[in-house]
Amino acid sequence: MPTRKLTVAYDGTAFAGWQMQAGVRTVQGVIEEALFPIDNTRIVAHAAGRTDAGVHAVGQVVSCRLQSSIGCDALQRAMNVRLPPDVRVLRVEEVPEGFNARFAARRKTYRYSLSTAQVVLPQRRLYVWHVAQSLDHDAIDRAAQALLGAHDFAAFQAAGGEASSTRRELFRSSVQRMEDELCYEVRGSGFLHHMVRNIVGTLVDIGRGRRPVEDMAMVLQSRDRRSASATAPPHGLTLWTVEY
Amino acid sequence: MPTRKLTVAYDGTAFAGWQMQAGVRTVQGVIEEALFPIDNTRIVAHAAGRTDAGVHAVGQVVSCRLQSSIGCDALQRAMNVRLPPDVRVLRVEEVPEGFNARFAARRKTYRYSLSTAQVVLPQRRLYVWHVAQSLDHDAIDRAAQALLGAHDFAAFQAAGGEASSTRRELFRSSVQRMEDELCYEVRGSGFLHHMVRNIVGTLVDIGRGRRPVEDMAMVLQSRDRRSASATAPPHGLTLWTVEY
Repeated sequence: MPTRKLTVAYDGTAFAGWQMQAGVRTVQGVIEEALFPIDNTRIVAHAAGRTDAGVHAVGQVVSCRLQSSIGCDALQRAMNVRLPPDVRVLRVEEVPEGFNARFAARRKTYRYSLSTAQVVLPQRRLYVWHVAQSLDHDAIDRAAQALLGAHDFAAFQAAGGEASSTRRELFRSSVQRMEDELCYEVRGSGFLHHMVRNIVGTLVDIGRGRRPVEDMAMVLQSRDRRSASATAPPHGLTLWTVEY
Repeated sequence: MPTRKLTVAYDGTAFAGWQMQAGVRTVQGVIEEALFPIDNTRIVAHAAGRTDAGVHAVGQVVSCRLQSSIGCDALQRAMNVRLPPDVRVLRVEEVPEGFNARFAARRKTYRYSLSTAQVVLPQRRLYVWHVAQSLDHDAIDRAAQALLGAHDFAAFQAAGGEASSTRRELFRSSVQRMEDELCYEVRGSGFLHHMVRNIVGTLVDIGRGRRPVEDMAMVLQSRDRRSASATAPPHGLTLWTVEY
């Protein structure tokens, strides 16, 4: 069965996340609906990162196995005609049979956007977390770097997280100023449920001066969700790229 | 009566333009609604540029005369609490009595965003015109420069335009590449109805090779709307700044 790798972008605002659930609009749901006519049967779409409600993507990767031998360009066109405007297929590639976008992923990169402006432009309101307060950029960046390398990230996993191992490796964890926003970029071998948003919540508390920079290492070592700060809101988060 | 100058940003997607009209949602309507409790009576809001349905703003300027002597910061806060999330007041300043944002404006700058990518990111779909075709950037830029200076822009005025004089002066008219988009920036003494969108429609036809670069000067000289190309869609256009 021909297997395809789709690079997909979406505006997460109007979705209840990636994963199919009865009675709500999900990205997996609209993608499988757009795939249905290809084989006239359900084609399961596997995503590299099962993003939460409100989280965006510019480089999500999705795999699916087809019966039909439709070409990559024809598949991309057919899907973009059927998909709603808040989801687009950016690229379709042929991959070896058995490729699974989730299990084959080696590294994922997320970006989280924060604004410390007094007022956020309405055009950015669905894509940045408005922290209406100045932040200590240097403290945030030092705290972010304390996460680099291989660690047990249990403290940053959502309560009830189901990962069998909570060990992950981060290759990049840093903050950049982009125009009047702060952007936290994190690249890792994988991410636990809510991991990026829990890290950002803790970084922002450090940037506000509510916690010292050294708390980041302390939280990490505690392996206790209760020692990290509150989860940052979903709409600042974008799944940026997935590497294989 | 204290007069105030408001700098306002909005996402034009869900508005039937600036100007109040019965039965539709307009920017002027929601701003006057947010102003109402200040004096407990209608306060008329005058805008520098009466943008059309779907057109955005990051630096619209609005003036209003109040009876109350509310301070600038208090007025900004009170309005942002009452305004819907797709409109924000970025700044409030005191100005001499009689200041009118429309008649006092000396220069306005608009930006128009175009994408020639095969697929546009969903996050940008409400802010760029998707011209799914490669464009000759150099031809567009040369045609854009032909508009610099003082001219009769009657050919770029919407049919039925009501301006008493169609003479305007352009101080900037050029195209830049910004990431994978093209951005046309135009700064002028004033703009006729649909003028920027009619210029962009003509620039895109030139960029597609459907018309030669020299057509721009020919259209301008014709003073005939029928010689220009079709009006570009509103959602690529943003009112950027207004100078006094």
